[in-house]
Amino acid sequence: MTAILFPEPRADVLARRDFIIDGLSKLVGPSSLVTSEDERRAFETDAFTAYRRMPLAVVLPTTTEEVSRVLAFCHQHAVPVVPRGAGTSLCGGAIPQEDAVVIGLSKMSRILDINYPDRLATVQIGVTNLAITNAVSAEGFFYAPDPSSQLACTIGGNIAMNSGGAHCLKYGVTTNNILGVTLVLVDGTICQIGGEAMDAAGLDLLGLVCGSEGQLGIMTEAIVRILPAAEGARPVLFGFETSEKAGEAVAAIIAAGIVPVAMEFMDKPAIEICEAFAKAGYPMDVDALLIIEVEGSEAEMEATLAKIVEIAKKHGVKRIKESKSAMETAAIWKGRKSAFGATGRIADYICMDGTIPTGQLPYVLRRIDEIVKHYGLRVANVFHAGDGNLHPLILYNVNDPTEAMKAEEAGNDILKLCVEVGGCLTGEHGVGIEKRDLMIHQFNPADLAQQLRVRAAFDADWILNPAKVFPLEGRTA
Amino acid sequence: MTAILFPEPRADVLARRDFIIDGLSKLVGPSSLVTSEDERRAFETDAFTAYRRMPLAVVLPTTTEEVSRVLAFCHQHAVPVVPRGAGTSLCGGAIPQEDAVVIGLSKMSRILDINYPDRLATVQIGVTNLAITNAVSAEGFFYAPDPSSQLACTIGGNIAMNSGGAHCLKYGVTTNNILGVTLVLVDGTICQIGGEAMDAAGLDLLGLVCGSEGQLGIMTEAIVRILPAAEGARPVLFGFETSEKAGEAVAAIIAAGIVPVAMEFMDKPAIEICEAFAKAGYPMDVDALLIIEVEGSEAEMEATLAKIVEIAKKHGVKRIKESKSAMETAAIWKGRKSAFGATGRIADYICMDGTIPTGQLPYVLRRIDEIVKHYGLRVANVFHAGDGNLHPLILYNVNDPTEAMKAEEAGNDILKLCVEVGGCLTGEHGVGIEKRDLMIHQFNPADLAQQLRVRAAFDADWILNPAKVFPLEGRTA
Repeated sequence: MTAILFPEPRADVLARRDFIIDGLSKLVGPSSLVTSEDERRAFETDAFTAYRRMPLAVVLPTTTEEVSRVLAFCHQHAVPVVPRGAGTSLCGGAIPQEDAVVIGLSKMSRILDINYPDRLATVQIGVTNLAITNAVSAEGFFYAPDPSSQLACTIGGNIAMNSGGAHCLKYGVTTNNILGVTLVLVDGTICQIGGEAMDAAGLDLLGLVCGSEGQLGIMTEAIVRILPAAEGARPVLFGFETSEKAGEAVAAIIAAGIVPVAMEFMDKPAIEICEAFAKAGYPMDVDALLIIEVEGSEAEMEATLAKIVEIAKKHGVKRIKESKSAMETAAIWKGRKSAFGATGRIADYICMDGTIPTGQLPYVLRRIDEIVKHYGLRVANVFHAGDGNLHPLILYNVNDPTEAMKAEEAGNDILKLCVEVGGCLTGEHGVGIEKRDLMIHQFNPADLAQQLRVRAAFDADWILNPAKVFPLEGRTA
Repeated sequence: MTAILFPEPRADVLARRDFIIDGLSKLVGPSSLVTSEDERRAFETDAFTAYRRMPLAVVLPTTTEEVSRVLAFCHQHAVPVVPRGAGTSLCGGAIPQEDAVVIGLSKMSRILDINYPDRLATVQIGVTNLAITNAVSAEGFFYAPDPSSQLACTIGGNIAMNSGGAHCLKYGVTTNNILGVTLVLVDGTICQIGGEAMDAAGLDLLGLVCGSEGQLGIMTEAIVRILPAAEGARPVLFGFETSEKAGEAVAAIIAAGIVPVAMEFMDKPAIEICEAFAKAGYPMDVDALLIIEVEGSEAEMEATLAKIVEIAKKHGVKRIKESKSAMETAAIWKGRKSAFGATGRIADYICMDGTIPTGQLPYVLRRIDEIVKHYGLRVANVFHAGDGNLHPLILYNVNDPTEAMKAEEAGNDILKLCVEVGGCLTGEHGVGIEKRDLMIHQFNPADLAQQLRVRAAFDADWILNPAKVFPLEGRTA
């Protein structure tokens, strides 16, 4: 695939490579600077593996002050910078460019403070999502947003992309679960955004930074909410004869105001792929599966579940199966969370990430099927149904350029469909390079121009992650 | 009180008053332009009545296009603009200035569309908060944030101030309950920010606009979440012998991860004032009262309540009284929601609005008492305890300039205390002119400079509500 254009590397930066590396070597220790081609190769791409570029150099700072010095240097010398967490981005958010210095935050992975009375933790930005939960689980707490990559992905990447996860239906996405960040501005200035208490006077820069994909500054620390784990939790499987019926049930549950912890959808291809991988006990005689998790005391779970079962029956549910043990629960979630990996074992795929109003689910599922068939391809749907956050996985053969192009076109058609019905290009994966050129379908020129003016208030010279998010054409400054 | 300085009215604008009024009269109908001194007087101040200024003129547009034309005209001719909803701001957010045109949005009060399956309503920006709930209550829905002024205040003012309310503990404040707005930029450009689905690609300008106090543009429409009302709801009164014990109980309930719908605090003076006004049945033999509301099915309410009672007993609760009827419930909430008005009947007061981490409640309540005593004044505390959002009402005599000055100083000391313990100057009332000069205690110069750069990306010429939010000194552009 070569559909997405990168900006031409700036010759003046490439020509100064020795000077830049020499300068960086004076700012960080030798073990924090990666210059050899072999070692740089590890930073060529992220989880959007269809594209790759070799960065000019990689810096792995260990303190906020190092990040500040490196940014100030790059800003002074007009060198593009690409921040990177664990490199799990599905939209190419961490793919470098040839004239850029990658600033990798993976060494900044310490948990600095845990405050149980106020239910918050202060962490370095390179800590993994799951490490936060692991650090507080003995006390009965957890960090709520749970992207499937939570074992590897960093909180910094989560904030940059405003990541979600299966359990965000109840607990909200990343922006609802962070309280503050330390942000190093492009000129090296260190800012505190937000803090330990709710809300903030003045402009809400925290909400702005969340989801800004590394274009407003580089975060080095975060204050995150931790929550007490519920008394109990139980996933229940609901099998339907058609995707449309399952979609109707989801829309009806949401419309009734019931908020399960999670409400995940899988269609037939996804069920087969995930069951083969995880032996989760998914029913195989249905065309669509909902994994609905309820939590609370036994009485609370029973009460919520009774309401859900009633609605599911109205919409012709064929199979209902409750998890009976912790092992079954683990298998059910392992199947869901390994969906992308399991799909990767049987085919190449691109993963879409559109959102839609939940009332549109039945219609959109039917249209996705038509779109993919039109291109002669197959699709597996596995997604956060309660949030209306779709993840169609379009299957194709990466070695067949025509098929690859068709897959990309089908994906674009699906995202345009999401926007048409009142939804959005990306729920939790971000825009990155993948959806950069689709932004014009979501926003009109006036909307985009205002976003660009706000971006320029942080980085007028396009130093920070410049190949991403905004269409290359029509950029100012 | 004259402690807060307004900028000098710009002589060049005052000199062009006839030209400006003539220009405006060509943009809106005669019934939408207010020029006589008598009629303008209604727009001199808001609920922060200690300060008032007579505006140059008042425009009351009825469409987005009229707002756009008026803004474009004012921008072109460098005339300051002050947007206004219902004028219920407690921090002077809608107080005009003598060289400004007030744009009042109260005529734009229609509900444009209600979408129950997707649980959202599209409204004009001047609709009152309660009118949204009233429009959907027959179908069992409501709009969650419930400021005490909800009968009068507009959704536009709520968004501009990121308003909260007693029931925001469970449902979040305004920023958690809006999905999109139509924003007219200072040059008249009409932007759509956010939309019907969750999240948004690109920069999250919706979060930025929420709480921006009319300085980034003028909103004309909003898409808000509506929620299905719970099966049942019941407030329970918990009386304690000391404020500190009540504060400890609140901190313990929050730390245990219990989320009642509301958890409101009143100290002895507040109890007496509100009981005298509302005959709510509050216990009079306690020094501190918590109103804790639980909701859900009967079983859910019982289960949650049992946990709360257990914690309250651990912290020495003296009286527990459940509402036994809808009438009792209404009286309990009438007492709480009329606290400011009832206080106003017995004394002048200024109302603070700091937030703190809930774990700091017992310490901060003790310190507030000490601070107010130090100035020889009295205080009534009535606030959203679960959110850590304090509202000390400092009582004073408005006709005694020395006492007025002391009240303001005591208020400033309290807000500085909130910031010291990790909190914030304002939870839901906004900065306005009231806390403008305290911003330097919350933010360091680098933080403020970045906020100002973002502000400048919307309004480089300081046309929009310019006397507010940011200290007058050190402004750029």
